[in-house]
Amino acid sequence: MRHHGDAEVRGAGADLTDLAVNVRAGTPPAWLTARIAASLGTLAAYPDGRAARRAVAARHGLPEECVLLTAGAAEAFVLLARALRATAPAVVHPQFTEPEAALRDAGHTVRRVLLDADDGFRLDPGAVPDAADLVVVGNPTNPTSVLHPAGTLESLAREGRTLVVDEAFMDAVPDERETLAPLVTTLPGRVAVLRSLTKTWGLAGLRVGYVLSDPDTVAALGAHQPLWPVSTPALVAAEACCAPDALAEAARAARQYAADRAHLLARLREFAGVGLRVVEPAEAPFLLVRHPRATALRLRLREAGFALRRGDTFPGLGPEWLRLAVRDRVTTDALAAALAAAGGLARDTPGGA
Amino acid sequence: MRHHGDAEVRGAGADLTDLAVNVRAGTPPAWLTARIAASLGTLAAYPDGRAARRAVAARHGLPEECVLLTAGAAEAFVLLARALRATAPAVVHPQFTEPEAALRDAGHTVRRVLLDADDGFRLDPGAVPDAADLVVVGNPTNPTSVLHPAGTLESLAREGRTLVVDEAFMDAVPDERETLAPLVTTLPGRVAVLRSLTKTWGLAGLRVGYVLSDPDTVAALGAHQPLWPVSTPALVAAEACCAPDALAEAARAARQYAADRAHLLARLREFAGVGLRVVEPAEAPFLLVRHPRATALRLRLREAGFALRRGDTFPGLGPEWLRLAVRDRVTTDALAAALAAAGGLARDTPGGA
Repeated sequence: MRHHGDAEVRGAGADLTDLAVNVRAGTPPAWLTARIAASLGTLAAYPDGRAARRAVAARHGLPEECVLLTAGAAEAFVLLARALRATAPAVVHPQFTEPEAALRDAGHTVRRVLLDADDGFRLDPGAVPDAADLVVVGNPTNPTSVLHPAGTLESLAREGRTLVVDEAFMDAVPDERETLAPLVTTLPGRVAVLRSLTKTWGLAGLRVGYVLSDPDTVAALGAHQPLWPVSTPALVAAEACCAPDALAEAARAARQYAADRAHLLARLREFAGVGLRVVEPAEAPFLLVRHPRATALRLRLREAGFALRRGDTFPGLGPEWLRLAVRDRVTTDALAAALAAAGGLARDTPGGA
Repeated sequence: MRHHGDAEVRGAGADLTDLAVNVRAGTPPAWLTARIAASLGTLAAYPDGRAARRAVAARHGLPEECVLLTAGAAEAFVLLARALRATAPAVVHPQFTEPEAALRDAGHTVRRVLLDADDGFRLDPGAVPDAADLVVVGNPTNPTSVLHPAGTLESLAREGRTLVVDEAFMDAVPDERETLAPLVTTLPGRVAVLRSLTKTWGLAGLRVGYVLSDPDTVAALGAHQPLWPVSTPALVAAEACCAPDALAEAARAARQYAADRAHLLARLREFAGVGLRVVEPAEAPFLLVRHPRATALRLRLREAGFALRRGDTFPGLGPEWLRLAVRDRVTTDALAAALAAAGGLARDTPGGA
């Protein structure tokens, strides 16, 4: 379960095109790097998270008390697992594995709700056990790229249950439609939304994200943080990414992703005849694909210079699944050419892993 | 208990000389800031802590498996409180308050071992309860500036007990004498040493430190960390600060501290006649002082442009205690002048807080 996309490119040659890690290409932008660099002169002072908290709150139109800055979403998962008094947590799969890992590490027995590939991994609220008092779901979901309707999610946010929505990729969805962020004040105690700056802004190395929830939940999570949990460069980045110009840039990037994804989908559909299937509709900056000999295909593509992420480490997925990031048209066309060159393999001939 | 020195200077005017926060003046050095800035181009990649771990291990002559990088010592305190299976923790006071706060937050009942001002806050191993299975002590101790002998500490590292030594200021002690770092392999399971890069290198804003212990303890603590717990800039800094040139610079800084501290002590002794007492021998880059009207003195010095840290938030200390950082001779002489100007107050006349 603790396999992540970065392991697929670690130690690889510089020529490998990374389709395994879902960080936007060409990031962080130069203006953001410059802002972070300018903060390094103040490193001797302990971090002061107040300005970043204000900026994030304003960006979402929420009170400051509804915002908790964290050292990446990974810290948020640990806090949720340890600070909330859940007795029957459920995790909707397939999804990013860290929420379940954090719950287990905290001593919880985790109920898995497995969505069905044949149903396009759509969320059926009836599949979530009534007794679940903590439900974790990703939206849009990593690795399926499915965007669940906000109304469906809201129906899961019941009295006596906290619905945790991992929205790490929501800022890559045009207009962030289907976000549950506005509900954290209207459904207090029932909704916690996790956000990340990692993917859109290329800040995976900086460790910064945040939780949006009601003030009581935010306070409970914060009480489990170490002192000074988020570094000054990370706080500076969070504040900078909430500025109007940054939000406009993120919105442009989301629209570009939609166009690039449409092109990637079109090119991948050319391989339907040799057994390649894509989960649709896809709304995230990555796609989940299925192929009867996915492992051999992945290794062949790696030889051709493309790193895709294996899917079989996600609960509910088998060895026939792969995840790949949405990139620009040039990269997509090169990938399609490599797929065509691997045609014999794609036709499910004998041999290979 | 959750009052820290940074609160004493927060929001203060730029003219206030900060004697409240124990970070070395003039830090981080330009070469270190440049190294960190150079790493910002790689922020899109997830952090890879292996090189930093190797560097820290080599710096201490320990196997890599004995090193755990953490998001500052603050994270290490939380990990120790949550990951070690202690049932009867004891904390030696007065000392930095975060270890006890982290233990309490983790649900522990904490036994306090209070050292005696009249005995110069020296550590009497007999004062530590035999039943204590986790003992936390600072060396040199914040805020007393007392350096406990390694032999005394070693006697506390018994079978069935983990001795945690917070050595956040040890790199400011010439030759790091009295460090327990070499014992983590010879007394496996009995010793954990916490180190910081914050004070000597001016990296308080970056959140980076590490634990040295036996491989099993390191693995247990690491299992409680979130994924990617330390940011790339912090890892780059940790590696850089372990290089031979950096260690030589730290050693020079430690000797400079000793000289500056001797001067500060000499100047403070001039005020013995008006009731000012310093805890000696002092071995850290700060001093603990006592004055019958310390609060009024602190406020008067603040008006004169010097921020000292109140001592009464440390368990075992009352309102008559203050802590102040060791600075250069010019700053010390200016402080002495301000003390002389506050002479009427120092003579314990009526009025004031």
